[in-house]
Amino acid sequence: MSREVRVAIAGGSGYTGGELLRLLLFHPHVQVQQITSERFAGKPVTKVHPNLRKLTPLKFDKIGDLQPCDLLFLCLPHGETANRWDDFVRLAPKVIDLSADFRLNDAAAYRHAYKKHHPRPDLLQRFVYGIPELHRDEIRDADYVASAGCNATATILGLYPLYRAGVVDPERTVVEVKVGSSEAGNRANEGSHHPERSNCLRSFSPTGHRHVAEITQELSFGSKIQVHFSATAVDMVRGALATSHVFLNQGLEEKDVWKIYREHYAAEPFVRIVKERDGIYRYPEPKLLAGTNFCDVGFERDPASDRVVVISAIDNLMKGSAGQAVQALNLMCGFEERTALEFPGLHPV
Amino acid sequence: MSREVRVAIAGGSGYTGGELLRLLLFHPHVQVQQITSERFAGKPVTKVHPNLRKLTPLKFDKIGDLQPCDLLFLCLPHGETANRWDDFVRLAPKVIDLSADFRLNDAAAYRHAYKKHHPRPDLLQRFVYGIPELHRDEIRDADYVASAGCNATATILGLYPLYRAGVVDPERTVVEVKVGSSEAGNRANEGSHHPERSNCLRSFSPTGHRHVAEITQELSFGSKIQVHFSATAVDMVRGALATSHVFLNQGLEEKDVWKIYREHYAAEPFVRIVKERDGIYRYPEPKLLAGTNFCDVGFERDPASDRVVVISAIDNLMKGSAGQAVQALNLMCGFEERTALEFPGLHPV
Amino acid sequence: MSREVRVAIAGGSGYTGGELLRLLLFHPHVQVQQITSERFAGKPVTKVHPNLRKLTPLKFDKIGDLQPCDLLFLCLPHGETANRWDDFVRLAPKVIDLSADFRLNDAAAYRHAYKKHHPRPDLLQRFVYGIPELHRDEIRDADYVASAGCNATATILGLYPLYRAGVVDPERTVVEVKVGSSEAGNRANEGSHHPERSNCLRSFSPTGHRHVAEITQELSFGSKIQVHFSATAVDMVRGALATSHVFLNQGLEEKDVWKIYREHYAAEPFVRIVKERDGIYRYPEPKLLAGTNFCDVGFERDPASDRVVVISAIDNLMKGSAGQAVQALNLMCGFEERTALEFPGLHPV
Amino acid sequence: MSREVRVAIAGGSGYTGGELLRLLLFHPHVQVQQITSERFAGKPVTKVHPNLRKLTPLKFDKIGDLQPCDLLFLCLPHGETANRWDDFVRLAPKVIDLSADFRLNDAAAYRHAYKKHHPRPDLLQRFVYGIPELHRDEIRDADYVASAGCNATATILGLYPLYRAGVVDPERTVVEVKVGSSEAGNRANEGSHHPERSNCLRSFSPTGHRHVAEITQELSFGSKIQVHFSATAVDMVRGALATSHVFLNQGLEEKDVWKIYREHYAAEPFVRIVKERDGIYRYPEPKLLAGTNFCDVGFERDPASDRVVVISAIDNLMKGSAGQAVQALNLMCGFEERTALEFPGLHPV
Repeated sequence: MSREVRVAIAGGSGYTGGELLRLLLFHPHVQVQQITSERFAGKPVTKVHPNLRKLTPLKFDKIGDLQPCDLLFLCLPHGETANRWDDFVRLAPKVIDLSADFRLNDAAAYRHAYKKHHPRPDLLQRFVYGIPELHRDEIRDADYVASAGCNATATILGLYPLYRAGVVDPERTVVEVKVGSSEAGNRANEGSHHPERSNCLRSFSPTGHRHVAEITQELSFGSKIQVHFSATAVDMVRGALATSHVFLNQGLEEKDVWKIYREHYAAEPFVRIVKERDGIYRYPEPKLLAGTNFCDVGFERDPASDRVVVISAIDNLMKGSAGQAVQALNLMCGFEERTALEFPGLHPV
Repeated sequence: MSREVRVAIAGGSGYTGGELLRLLLFHPHVQVQQITSERFAGKPVTKVHPNLRKLTPLKFDKIGDLQPCDLLFLCLPHGETANRWDDFVRLAPKVIDLSADFRLNDAAAYRHAYKKHHPRPDLLQRFVYGIPELHRDEIRDADYVASAGCNATATILGLYPLYRAGVVDPERTVVEVKVGSSEAGNRANEGSHHPERSNCLRSFSPTGHRHVAEITQELSFGSKIQVHFSATAVDMVRGALATSHVFLNQGLEEKDVWKIYREHYAAEPFVRIVKERDGIYRYPEPKLLAGTNFCDVGFERDPASDRVVVISAIDNLMKGSAGQAVQALNLMCGFEERTALEFPGLHPV
Repeated sequence: MSREVRVAIAGGSGYTGGELLRLLLFHPHVQVQQITSERFAGKPVTKVHPNLRKLTPLKFDKIGDLQPCDLLFLCLPHGETANRWDDFVRLAPKVIDLSADFRLNDAAAYRHAYKKHHPRPDLLQRFVYGIPELHRDEIRDADYVASAGCNATATILGLYPLYRAGVVDPERTVVEVKVGSSEAGNRANEGSHHPERSNCLRSFSPTGHRHVAEITQELSFGSKIQVHFSATAVDMVRGALATSHVFLNQGLEEKDVWKIYREHYAAEPFVRIVKERDGIYRYPEPKLLAGTNFCDVGFERDPASDRVVVISAIDNLMKGSAGQAVQALNLMCGFEERTALEFPGLHPV
Repeated sequence: MSREVRVAIAGGSGYTGGELLRLLLFHPHVQVQQITSERFAGKPVTKVHPNLRKLTPLKFDKIGDLQPCDLLFLCLPHGETANRWDDFVRLAPKVIDLSADFRLNDAAAYRHAYKKHHPRPDLLQRFVYGIPELHRDEIRDADYVASAGCNATATILGLYPLYRAGVVDPERTVVEVKVGSSEAGNRANEGSHHPERSNCLRSFSPTGHRHVAEITQELSFGSKIQVHFSATAVDMVRGALATSHVFLNQGLEEKDVWKIYREHYAAEPFVRIVKERDGIYRYPEPKLLAGTNFCDVGFERDPASDRVVVISAIDNLMKGSAGQAVQALNLMCGFEERTALEFPGLHPV
């Protein structure tokens, strides 16, 4: 089959860029025309993405050498997409941005979360927030998509059905996300040094995590909500698990909660409701999801209170980043939504 | 110096028994007279506690062969202490029980948590709950001490000062504990099989954890409280980290919270307040605590709400079990409280 | 495309069976007709292979209910294939056996390695040893294939070119294989208990490993050779790394060794020669290979002696087992050799 | 008891310096007078050694501010001890150097291993190589001791009895060492970045490891020997395991080998011969040794050849570095050899 869509990846030496490349090389309708890295320009991509050895002859280009293409992925440091937008927009009619620049559609919310004025507030309304389960039709019609943050993705997909149904006390939710080390990118630092990062169980954002702004945006439906969010780093490379404690504002039983989740997710190709009575894998777990685009969602109704504990798991580099972006590409280009995203995950691993 | 206190350990082939033995062999005032294991009776203790090779010639005895001693440690499966109490009480004037049998002082609370009637409700009031930071004087005078559950210990030590000070909304606290695999003991099962347990991030008690009963008992101070508790297993052997989200019922600033913690813990030999502005180890972390009897406690005041996130870390086999028990022995026998518990922990590890 | 080959998997609840199923569900020309498990008969395969949730409605059958098919995979405990051969042979014209029963073509070698008489020496010559890089044409024509042992596969693929070329002292080679925990299968035992198996670096076969018989068979080319083999378990789930120390019997330089490897492997779809001057991944490493069918091979010529250190890495469940078996299926059925085996591996993971 | 020996640690912010400090703070006869770090001068040592919180008020000094003391530990980058020797020698009558500068007593061997001329060949004979099991009496009388390399320590202690007994083919030994990440020190780099270093099984010195020079020096006893050495990094923080394949030059049975090891090591306080018929921990393993000064040594006689596989394990920061240095201090100062080194290790961990 001919590869009808030509794409380029700007900022392709990081983990997200590598993951995009891995997926797109096997996408039957896509041709990766260029991938950029200032640091590794001229070198084979396998220098930094060694898993792709023998699979591609691609070399890194400089970002200034990008040629026009059909769809441009931007995997640049936060701030770069906005700052260089006028250059990028000339290169491609469709853009998927994987940075945080255009996830929020409100300049005040951006200022609050990122402690600075948004450099291009004029563009905020032109990007669609990239979680297909919430914005499928808008993504289909979008020119510009902003892929969601990984922790935000896990949290939102876990909580969305309950918030959408309006059954939750909007100010009491507490979310604890546990994350692997790949979330912080591929640059070594003191805290990522193996002897320090190994065996860790490290609170890194007890309060003030930036993804809260995205979560609030997507779950508020016009009302004021408050999500109490914390994040802890664990000794794992890939994966994010959100444990969300929500408090019901009405007397729902377990089967009612089930029904709400089924209604929202039964037809979703990449969301699985995981809730079993026995066995090892009764609740969602990132271990099963490495390399996949699934978000597994489960829950437990606390019989001793009005609490529901929602558990949602993703691979942060996939459903939390590159996989979500390819899913958006599939929608934007009219391909079957699962194309290039069918890897089922390994067990055990 | 003569070893004036003769102790015995019943149920000494498990991880808790091994840890007790490790500590007591180096205690200058204690002689380990006997240690029992039905399964390994007659075999050297180093068969199951290989870290003690070349350090002790002790062999396991059968529990029926226990001789009188000064202090008896019971590390038996839950239920055994209560069921066989009349045998044990004849052997020693002082007993430290590391099971869950006598942690609760209320038979109704026991029935609610353990789903059965307590076999010996007559004894409930005779045991002191074994966390020295809460019950030091009572432990000094006690004949019988019930060591606290590991998750309960981490949670209680984190929350006690705020609850004691009465500054917390008593029904909103959410606690998320992350634990290593040694918590589940030394018997292999399907879920502890390395290929399944490795790389896990596994919810095992989203609701209904039994330790909630202990936490509630120790933090309620006569009022009704509700602690919303969940537990997640991580890929670590030793260690427990409690992330507790409490909501203030009055307008405290960070320095006020500091003051509360300092007042309670500044003089404690085994509680450290950990809260730094920079560096890798800004908050408490079990990684630094393996083998130690410390509970590290830190917190962060959320400027965006009335939340305080309290972070508390222990080694579940030490401060959460054997170390706590030896600390109790030191108090009960009039030894310096830190005796045999001075190991500072390793970095890195 | 129609799925023209109907297969069945006998003994499908183990890790190898699960991995076969994962691959075959995405094989465009194969239909998995049945998969058996005595223990889980009647239950969905996702009960034990949770990564396949939402991807297949298959349930386990009992082995006695197997229907005729085109190709039968046998993933039974060692000994079962031979003992029940007369039953199996009636079910399918082609069989791929993943046990150790028919890897050796000499009854005396079997007796020496497995300490018992082979129950069906009459069949030994009817099986082809399943490493395609050594026996591609024979496998194409074979009815019965015996997949190689995982450690044997890593070792043989690393050493084959040098032994084939006759440049090695045949009695001095020392091989040290490091392996993950999935090699030992999915049954929990005392040694696989996470607190014991985690952080391990455990010699489990310093001498006497059974795979030596396969290695010797495949590398001897009619001469007597001796391979000094040891194996060490490491804290990893998937993966095997063989570090082989061979001693040259003639004065080859590095470029000569290169040439030998290139001649043998340049055209191989699943062998990559990995040998870089800088970067993190200069030599083969299983970390990059999880889920892939690659064997990466590298080497270093010791300038201080006549030693060459050969390093070869595989995923033990893939190239070391299920992937190798699917590669054989592709050859036996005339499909493109890479079909269903194209997953490139993840980085990082 | 008074702390009669005043010591200082130059270069104390690294892992080795931290480990020395941890040990010496609990040494009953030693007072740590100063510890230096250019980078952290003026800051509390707990800034970089957080395990020591609440245990010491020490701050880092600059190296230029060192005052005279009784014994000086040097934990500086390789080359610094030799280059600045004239400054250091004025500060203390006894020096223990933990760098590689004075391990070799032959300038030509140094040049060969380190690819440069030794800057102070005049001093080479004044240092005693710091492994007490080989040089106890010399260390007792020494002013200057050079602590051995960690991989060299594990290898030498494993092989010494056999080489000393002269029962080994001197040119055939192959050694494969597996090491944790703390060996490479506390500076972050691309290869130590957690997503890259985690799950690794990485050959880093297939040939040409510098420690071979030390091994050769200590095992040759006047004859020419050749040790074929490789090293592989594993996903572990502390620990080194040497698997050494030696070939006997005479017909020894297992009990003869036993006898040789027992003769050398039965009286050693820090060497344990580990060789059991069953159980999980049949051979030496670093997992049991974290924080201890033990070297565990075991072996297996290959019945199929003249090979003996020797397995030796240490904690690289302890017996392989700081622990060995404190053992030397104890000898040099006339203290009981085990003082401050009695920690037995944790199980499980």
